[in-house]
Amino acid sequence: KQKEFEKATGKVSAQSKEALRAALAGVLERRMFYIPSFKIYGSVAGFYDYGPPGCAIKQNMTQTWRNHFVLEENMLEVECPAVTPEIVLKASGHVDRFTDFMVTDAVTGECFRADHLLEGHLEALLEDKKNPPSPEKTKEIRELLASVGELKQDTMAAALKEYNVRAPGTGNDISPPFPFNLMFKTSIGPKGDLVGYLRPETAQGIFVNFRDLLYYNGGKLPFAAAQIGNSYRNEISPRAGLLRVREFTQAEIEHFVNGADKSHPKFASIAGLRPLLYSRALQMGEEKKAQPMSLGEAVEKGIIANETLAYFIGRTWLFFIKVGINPERMRFRQHLQHEMAHYATDCWDGEVETTYGWVECVGLADRSAYDLKAHTSMSKIDLTAFEKFPEPRMEEVVKVVPNNKELGAVFKKDQKAVKEALEALDECGAMELKSKLDAGETAKVAASTGQTFDIKPGMVEIKKVTEKVTGKTYTPSVIEPSFGIGRIMYCMFEHSYYTREGDETRAVMGFKPVVAPTKATVFPLVQKPALNELATKISRDLTSAGLSNIIDTTGNTIGKRYARTDEIGVPFAVTVDFASVDGDGSVTLRERDSMAQVRVPQSEVASVIRNLVDDRMTWGDVTATYPAQKAQADDE
Amino acid sequence: KQKEFEKATGKVSAQSKEALRAALAGVLERRMFYIPSFKIYGSVAGFYDYGPPGCAIKQNMTQTWRNHFVLEENMLEVECPAVTPEIVLKASGHVDRFTDFMVTDAVTGECFRADHLLEGHLEALLEDKKNPPSPEKTKEIRELLASVGELKQDTMAAALKEYNVRAPGTGNDISPPFPFNLMFKTSIGPKGDLVGYLRPETAQGIFVNFRDLLYYNGGKLPFAAAQIGNSYRNEISPRAGLLRVREFTQAEIEHFVNGADKSHPKFASIAGLRPLLYSRALQMGEEKKAQPMSLGEAVEKGIIANETLAYFIGRTWLFFIKVGINPERMRFRQHLQHEMAHYATDCWDGEVETTYGWVECVGLADRSAYDLKAHTSMSKIDLTAFEKFPEPRMEEVVKVVPNNKELGAVFKKDQKAVKEALEALDECGAMELKSKLDAGETAKVAASTGQTFDIKPGMVEIKKVTEKVTGKTYTPSVIEPSFGIGRIMYCMFEHSYYTREGDETRAVMGFKPVVAPTKATVFPLVQKPALNELATKISRDLTSAGLSNIIDTTGNTIGKRYARTDEIGVPFAVTVDFASVDGDGSVTLRERDSMAQVRVPQSEVASVIRNLVDDRMTWGDVTATYPAQKAQADDE
Repeated sequence: KQKEFEKATGKVSAQSKEALRAALAGVLERRMFYIPSFKIYGSVAGFYDYGPPGCAIKQNMTQTWRNHFVLEENMLEVECPAVTPEIVLKASGHVDRFTDFMVTDAVTGECFRADHLLEGHLEALLEDKKNPPSPEKTKEIRELLASVGELKQDTMAAALKEYNVRAPGTGNDISPPFPFNLMFKTSIGPKGDLVGYLRPETAQGIFVNFRDLLYYNGGKLPFAAAQIGNSYRNEISPRAGLLRVREFTQAEIEHFVNGADKSHPKFASIAGLRPLLYSRALQMGEEKKAQPMSLGEAVEKGIIANETLAYFIGRTWLFFIKVGINPERMRFRQHLQHEMAHYATDCWDGEVETTYGWVECVGLADRSAYDLKAHTSMSKIDLTAFEKFPEPRMEEVVKVVPNNKELGAVFKKDQKAVKEALEALDECGAMELKSKLDAGETAKVAASTGQTFDIKPGMVEIKKVTEKVTGKTYTPSVIEPSFGIGRIMYCMFEHSYYTREGDETRAVMGFKPVVAPTKATVFPLVQKPALNELATKISRDLTSAGLSNIIDTTGNTIGKRYARTDEIGVPFAVTVDFASVDGDGSVTLRERDSMAQVRVPQSEVASVIRNLVDDRMTWGDVTATYPAQKAQADDE
Repeated sequence: KQKEFEKATGKVSAQSKEALRAALAGVLERRMFYIPSFKIYGSVAGFYDYGPPGCAIKQNMTQTWRNHFVLEENMLEVECPAVTPEIVLKASGHVDRFTDFMVTDAVTGECFRADHLLEGHLEALLEDKKNPPSPEKTKEIRELLASVGELKQDTMAAALKEYNVRAPGTGNDISPPFPFNLMFKTSIGPKGDLVGYLRPETAQGIFVNFRDLLYYNGGKLPFAAAQIGNSYRNEISPRAGLLRVREFTQAEIEHFVNGADKSHPKFASIAGLRPLLYSRALQMGEEKKAQPMSLGEAVEKGIIANETLAYFIGRTWLFFIKVGINPERMRFRQHLQHEMAHYATDCWDGEVETTYGWVECVGLADRSAYDLKAHTSMSKIDLTAFEKFPEPRMEEVVKVVPNNKELGAVFKKDQKAVKEALEALDECGAMELKSKLDAGETAKVAASTGQTFDIKPGMVEIKKVTEKVTGKTYTPSVIEPSFGIGRIMYCMFEHSYYTREGDETRAVMGFKPVVAPTKATVFPLVQKPALNELATKISRDLTSAGLSNIIDTTGNTIGKRYARTDEIGVPFAVTVDFASVDGDGSVTLRERDSMAQVRVPQSEVASVIRNLVDDRMTWGDVTATYPAQKAQADDE
């Protein structure tokens, strides 16, 4: 009845979410998809190990990602260390701003995330049946709840005070909120004076290599670089299981492009895709529901900022479908204006619906030229590209001509530094200086040495001239799709889990063959030497074809053995029977989701499964090619 | 002439080593196989990024490793975090003992590795032409040099003092040597009270999961678990480029086995292999040279301790050959007795000859039951396995029967603790207690609570009885093959590098197809739309077949283009010419090392290359199947 209600209304009750999550967790832990790390020492929150099937799925997923993005798009893949010296993360802003607000229990010293505490407190007020808040108060609480993530230190402090939020468990006073940096800190080298952090994202490794990568790419833009690797965030109080961990695998792409032209040559190939888009307008509207829309239309209407960003949204959608996410339970949500950094042009999060709500699994951001400019400014290394015009153009340019004689007389040994500072001015800086000098004022100019110099009229001539220019130097924009592999895996687990019709205890993990940890199991029908021998031979054939497989000679009933393999999501099962050794030599091949069975010659079975896994053949092709085998009474 | 001398004597002069290393480094850096990390910020010693071709080779190498070991042997692969709480590394001994001796410049505070300093100093003395040491002194220095790695803190201090070793560069006094822990330290969580380290090896993650892995394996031994992941060592002063880095990828196997039976079911499959073995006897002997010996013979003669260790030596040898290490320049060197930890049974290092000398790339160690016992002792969690005997046996066992009445009267509330302590005694402990009590003495017994109790005669009965036992509980032994992926890569680079006969400037990286970063290049013979179009189509076919490829339409001569692809080790090149579009539709396929060319139908070329890369076809098969194409004058 619960199920019918859910089907009819499209809503899932809290109980049924809890039940589903618990049932799934049971399978995942029992079959060792993951294990809380350091379990024999009591574990540490926020750390998980992948056990054998989890590890295999992760490998398959990153390999699929690599084929889908790196290989298909000829991206430049790099691998950089996780240990990162402070200056890199100072430039990126992480040292100063990668923080969450923390409060502590005034008595016990226990630490909490301020936003989690406030949210919990407000939700409890809304659900308080004994003392329900007034309609006005309810409205106020709801509004505050919606903006908890954007509160600043002072407004957070005010809110915690106003609602008299206290420490959970003890009910003690809490400290005012203060920023806590989420990076793990360490020191590099024996002297202890070189501060390092574990990277909070893989992206910075690509940015600091931009110059070399551009050279590698023959100086041509656009190009994309990619990195798959572990990142680290010292979360204050990790919860939500596999969704918020302290060490996790990211797969990030930095697509470098001239900000003046963000068209994409392959845009047409994805323009017809219709993922669920949850635009700013839909979020502010009445229904608050994502709508399918073709990416072509979204770019045309200006909903998605440009073709390149839309191209990656499309490719990301295809990737998610390929690894087993249900496209009807995935949406791309646009960041509201106040959610975006000041420099960002447009951002979309790929979110997947789970029992935890909508989970952000990928962020796609047009970050303009912010990152490369930040590193140029810190490193003093030029991180620009040069756009050669098809034809030279006549353009008005600003010329800065220092008066060497005058500079030499006034600045003596600093003459060179002053001259360089003047010549380094960009167009705006030069025109600003000109206007001051023209007004007879003295203006200050900063040199790269750290000195500041007073420039007086007559020391420099600044003029606009029209001249032939062959191209333009610019700092490329970056469009960044950033994937959280662990989160995608968890969401995929939820979307893959189901129970057999009519038997709630028979769990099936309906993994796509490409991500399934084990591609096939091999069973002898009964325990006989001849059958075991053939099963072993077929297992070896599968291994030679690069197909992970398990041979099960336990002698359990076939039905029990199928149930076991269903639970770890093995898509195909090969059963060897007497006909396989004495008759026509064929074996039974069974597909997990349809439970359909066919007879395949034993010499062909490895290549058939290989083709199925590599998507070169569908199960439909197989049933059309090979004769069906009727399931036996005790099979399922 | 230098080359002829080297060929004849088998010796390579120091100059030619330097020259080779410099030439190779030129290619590796120019083609971005690797990049010093954080280059725009001046880099940090001991950290390297893999650029696009390096990253691809590393992926191919770890994937080959996974297929060769994990898939072939059905190992249980796991993935554990790098951030590790202190208690785990306290148990393993790393917190207390994972150190190098450091000395500092008494004036500048600069840090040095004591052993490197002493070695450098002693080598300089030996090479001092002006004041050559006496023959006795020379002998003494040579002996000290050979044992530098095994000096303890006091003997190291004495040696540095005796030889008056001073700080390099400044000539200042140096501090006495002191141990410096090589682990990167951090803290976990917001309170800062949970000390963590970046793991110095991946092995511990497997040990702490032993209980769950055994359960996953149905309680059966032997089984092996594996992990590929990054490890971290805060080296005091990293040198030797890619060979000694602070963050590096390990691939480790822990094969758990009953110490009483280390035979291996697949031993026969490798018994006939004849790698170069450098046994203890050969190292102590006159010639000091490794000899080829079959692994079967080595086990039979007791040179290698057991079949399982020998099996992994054989499989490791095959892996090295598969990825491009020259087997004539690889040896397995047995640890001398004093090099091994007290608990180790037998250890062999897989070493590869390079311009840096013999480089340890893999360690294969029979570590007995040390690791699991260490974690049992720290965690108080039972990490044992149970061996069920085929038939129950009658065995003499020691029975401990506490006298409850007596214990209750004497120990009152502690009775339970005393009883448990007595029952927890192992066979030796119980017999020792018995002998004391029988002699009328009082004996002390320690309880798990930390208390100690005086046991007097009459409080417990200890007797040997013969009874039926069904099996035995034991702590498994561990045989550990541990691979350093980065080192294998560097050695493979050296073994792959050569120059074309007669042209010292034409560098070739002779990568095996399976590890080559790019499997094929596609060239149109000349720049014509029809040829470019067909080349693009073939490039797409290759991509669909999962083959990384580069299309080069630069219009350079074919010879120049071949030279470029040789340098990044592309094994196959496809050239599209007029016959490809107007004639029989065939294209030219060229193999890098032989430079031989054949004509292949365009529709078959992707699958031919796929088969070559997957080792399903040799180049000999290809030349036997397809007609040869004569090379053009300007081709090479």
